[in-house]
Amino acid sequence: MGQDWTLARIGVHIAEGLPLTALFDLDVLAADADHARLRINAGPQVLRPGGIVAGPILFAAADVATYALILARVGDPDAVTVDLTINFLRAGRNLPLIAEAVPLRAGRRLFSASVAITEQDGERRLIAQATTNWALS
Amino acid sequence: MGQDWTLARIGVHIAEGLPLTALFDLDVLAADADHARLRINAGPQVLRPGGIVAGPILFAAADVATYALILARVGDPDAVTVDLTINFLRAGRNLPLIAEAVPLRAGRRLFSASVAITEQDGERRLIAQATTNWALS
Amino acid sequence: MGQDWTLARIGVHIAEGLPLTALFDLDVLAADADHARLRINAGPQVLRPGGIVAGPILFAAADVATYALILARVGDPDAVTVDLTINFLRAGRNLPLIAEAVPLRAGRRLFSASVAITEQDGERRLIAQATTNWALS
Amino acid sequence: MGQDWTLARIGVHIAEGLPLTALFDLDVLAADADHARLRINAGPQVLRPGGIVAGPILFAAADVATYALILARVGDPDAVTVDLTINFLRAGRNLPLIAEAVPLRAGRRLFSASVAITEQDGERRLIAQATTNWALS
Repeated sequence: MGQDWTLARIGVHIAEGLPLTALFDLDVLAADADHARLRINAGPQVLRPGGIVAGPILFAAADVATYALILARVGDPDAVTVDLTINFLRAGRNLPLIAEAVPLRAGRRLFSASVAITEQDGERRLIAQATTNWALS
Repeated sequence: MGQDWTLARIGVHIAEGLPLTALFDLDVLAADADHARLRINAGPQVLRPGGIVAGPILFAAADVATYALILARVGDPDAVTVDLTINFLRAGRNLPLIAEAVPLRAGRRLFSASVAITEQDGERRLIAQATTNWALS
Repeated sequence: MGQDWTLARIGVHIAEGLPLTALFDLDVLAADADHARLRINAGPQVLRPGGIVAGPILFAAADVATYALILARVGDPDAVTVDLTINFLRAGRNLPLIAEAVPLRAGRRLFSASVAITEQDGERRLIAQATTNWALS
Repeated sequence: MGQDWTLARIGVHIAEGLPLTALFDLDVLAADADHARLRINAGPQVLRPGGIVAGPILFAAADVATYALILARVGDPDAVTVDLTINFLRAGRNLPLIAEAVPLRAGRRLFSASVAITEQDGERRLIAQATTNWALS
């Protein structure tokens, strides 16, 4: 399975099934068996009081990047998040940001990933770090 | 401090400063020193593939409910999330859902909360559970 | 299944299979389908610099209390911890402490629990709070 | 500060203040401003039913490795763990294991680290991964 989950198909599936990605202006840039990459674009929709990126946008980016990784690697659109822990390390001010998910475990029932969210440009500082477990269907 | 952070003022502050609450249609229903309650309304914007509530909406509800609790109790609009762990326990199908945040620690520097997300009606089953730490300013 | 996992049998199984419970002087006090309770006894083995209870003892208590709960409820000695998040809320100074685990999810593949660690006597203040997911065998 | 916290001094401080490191036979191998490394030695004290390494030993290794890192970098023996999330990825069978902690944030009040626990020899597979936040004193 998973053989047909090209980046283009993943993009369409996520755009159609997850309206929040359009609301937050998140773009899946890459997805294969070993990593997935998503961009958080600048815009008023991502802000919180103080003018920095809101935590829920970073969470959404980590969650959707992992979903793209699972689609590319396992081809399981019915996989669901069991849990996710996210640490917010620096205020996100310099957008766009990039969320990159890599596998920690690819089991028969459980899939685990680590996600780093960094600035796209300049020093590429680490803004947030997440770890997440998913149940495969 | 915090004496002026009435529910009405909290609602305005969040509506103006956090555009994602309008995008997701989240309503702060209550906020005082001991708990805050937020409603996730039904609508296409909250869904993921499979027709259930997407994880990022539940994360956003937990995060914003905690922010409302901190505003009501401590009156610190510049408090920021240090981390948040969320466990997704059941598929959220019967909206609206209610996120209720209660304090676990109210320190001088750190504020911690537990958030339960349940169905508003019927059996009021537990959909997700979160724990979060915030840094006060 | 699980019908034979009485408190006495659980105590023997844990004492024989988990040497750390003797090293830390942890006692399983109760275990049934809805909760399990474990006591952290006072002694030099539980301390860290500053004379308070060390984090790893609290983690061990949360983990073993959940294992006792799974034995009592599901009867699966081969269940393994997928992950555990623990928040340390107050310095543990007044021992003994009690760890109480309750189920959050009892699925076919995944078992999730919440664990509260409190002082046994006096104000029974909350010292730590944990959430954990286990894979059933 | 921190200028005097050599590896030798860190070893003595931990051996004297944290009896669990002797009970579990954990050795701090290295500690400087950028990483700390600790070894989990083989022995019956680290086992759980099934003959694999028990979760609490891995938690203890992650927690103590981070403490050694904080001593080496910040020189704050009164720093305390705020929270720790640990993911158990593979059964630990081939000891010794190595826990390596690296900083994610070194703030004035908060210190955050990522800890990888791997096999020391052979394929050096990843056994567990942790993220932790500490409050500096």
